[in-house]
Amino acid sequence: MDRIHEMKSPAEIVHLMMSKDEFSSWMDIQIDSIEKGKCSLSCQIRKEMLNGFSIAHGGIAYSLADSTLAFAANSYGLQSFSIETSISHLVKVKEGDLLKSNSIEIHRGNKTALYQIEVYNQKNIMVAIMKGTVYISKIVW
Amino acid sequence: MDRIHEMKSPAEIVHLMMSKDEFSSWMDIQIDSIEKGKCSLSCQIRKEMLNGFSIAHGGIAYSLADSTLAFAANSYGLQSFSIETSISHLVKVKEGDLLKSNSIEIHRGNKTALYQIEVYNQKNIMVAIMKGTVYISKIVW
Amino acid sequence: MDRIHEMKSPAEIVHLMMSKDEFSSWMDIQIDSIEKGKCSLSCQIRKEMLNGFSIAHGGIAYSLADSTLAFAANSYGLQSFSIETSISHLVKVKEGDLLKSNSIEIHRGNKTALYQIEVYNQKNIMVAIMKGTVYISKIVW
Amino acid sequence: MDRIHEMKSPAEIVHLMMSKDEFSSWMDIQIDSIEKGKCSLSCQIRKEMLNGFSIAHGGIAYSLADSTLAFAANSYGLQSFSIETSISHLVKVKEGDLLKSNSIEIHRGNKTALYQIEVYNQKNIMVAIMKGTVYISKIVW
Repeated sequence: MDRIHEMKSPAEIVHLMMSKDEFSSWMDIQIDSIEKGKCSLSCQIRKEMLNGFSIAHGGIAYSLADSTLAFAANSYGLQSFSIETSISHLVKVKEGDLLKSNSIEIHRGNKTALYQIEVYNQKNIMVAIMKGTVYISKIVW
Repeated sequence: MDRIHEMKSPAEIVHLMMSKDEFSSWMDIQIDSIEKGKCSLSCQIRKEMLNGFSIAHGGIAYSLADSTLAFAANSYGLQSFSIETSISHLVKVKEGDLLKSNSIEIHRGNKTALYQIEVYNQKNIMVAIMKGTVYISKIVW
Repeated sequence: MDRIHEMKSPAEIVHLMMSKDEFSSWMDIQIDSIEKGKCSLSCQIRKEMLNGFSIAHGGIAYSLADSTLAFAANSYGLQSFSIETSISHLVKVKEGDLLKSNSIEIHRGNKTALYQIEVYNQKNIMVAIMKGTVYISKIVW
Repeated sequence: MDRIHEMKSPAEIVHLMMSKDEFSSWMDIQIDSIEKGKCSLSCQIRKEMLNGFSIAHGGIAYSLADSTLAFAANSYGLQSFSIETSISHLVKVKEGDLLKSNSIEIHRGNKTALYQIEVYNQKNIMVAIMKGTVYISKIVW
């Protein structure tokens, strides 16, 4: 069996990651699309995701974006780990809102890669934008 | 009744914020200390906070740090909102770990403020560090 | 005289800023285009811009991006100040390279705005990307 | 000749870097102290470092901090490259101000490291703070 056949596909890797990802399950994150270096997820805001201002806790949009980053970065078949992420919260997110995230691969080197993750609500308004740097290990999925 | 008496204390503001903060409740975040511009929280890692690598999802340390930032920034009595946060994940966080966060007020102007939030595990090893910029509104708590 | 006539145009503001900007002059920054919320600059890398690795010092791409951010943010007519910027250096920049920067307005609120600045070399390869948050004052240019 | 003797000291590495660093020379950056993972620099603000607001261009404090980061990160003897830096400009810097920078090593792994660089003026007021992530190569200085 040659090496190409042993390598898992982006969908196989992400389904493997999701199957063990208890927190993404709690958030009820849906995988809308996945290909090499590109991932799109969605998630609906529930009451238990709200903060003291009765809007979604900043950690919710962050977590959706961080899962998107992880899936996009790992989709090539090498285990990759977030080392630095920054997020700007642009628009308030409310209960019932349906968030959708998309990844853009800005740069991919041998050791590190940079992704931008955009998070939109159901009105197609950008609610948050993340820039994430990952370290690419030699460990094959 | 004079203005001083009307102004809520840091503890009153944070308890008010926490009482409505459904997500911090889900995380079972404890308030260890709160004073003007300074907050310390803690939280234990449960199974439903893990990601596909069976370590805590990056969103968990982020959420703990983000709540710490929000409480520290709002403690002066004016509603304040995070506009930009960056976090570096330094050490893997495991199920059962007890995370503790501390805020440091780096700068506080009239309109914006900058905080650094450090997150440690039960062995006193720093697991994450956040830098957060907030916008200070004129709305009194 | 009506208010519209008193308000300076984006080009007037940026030329006013540039006329006093000694450091951008030292860098020999050229204004390629300027309109409301959108600016494009260029700059050629000289020997005195290099660092200890004989490539352009990280501060050079940062400065070009920071000027682009300042011009784009101030172009509406209200004085605006950078409060937080992050930059990722993606590709080495060499002596003789011609850098071009473009701004993208990601979000503009009443008090703060977020811009992304992309910096490319003469081969149209992205060498750096900046995310910048500005505070929008009430001071008219 | 054993390996220990071949390894350059932090001071040797930084002097080697500085000797070729044309831009740090233009800024007239002084090395105040250097040891493994720790560097302190200073620099005086000249007229040609000012921007359109007649204060120091944001790129100047950035460049001082970026050099500090580079020297601290490279001081162990392995060539290291900045991959992501974020800086908050806190207080205006004026002509004649004497800036001093200090590095703090927050985390050092095998492949990446995280530093915080604080920049102060002559009144010991923090004017800027940088968080920088570097990639540690295998190339020996």
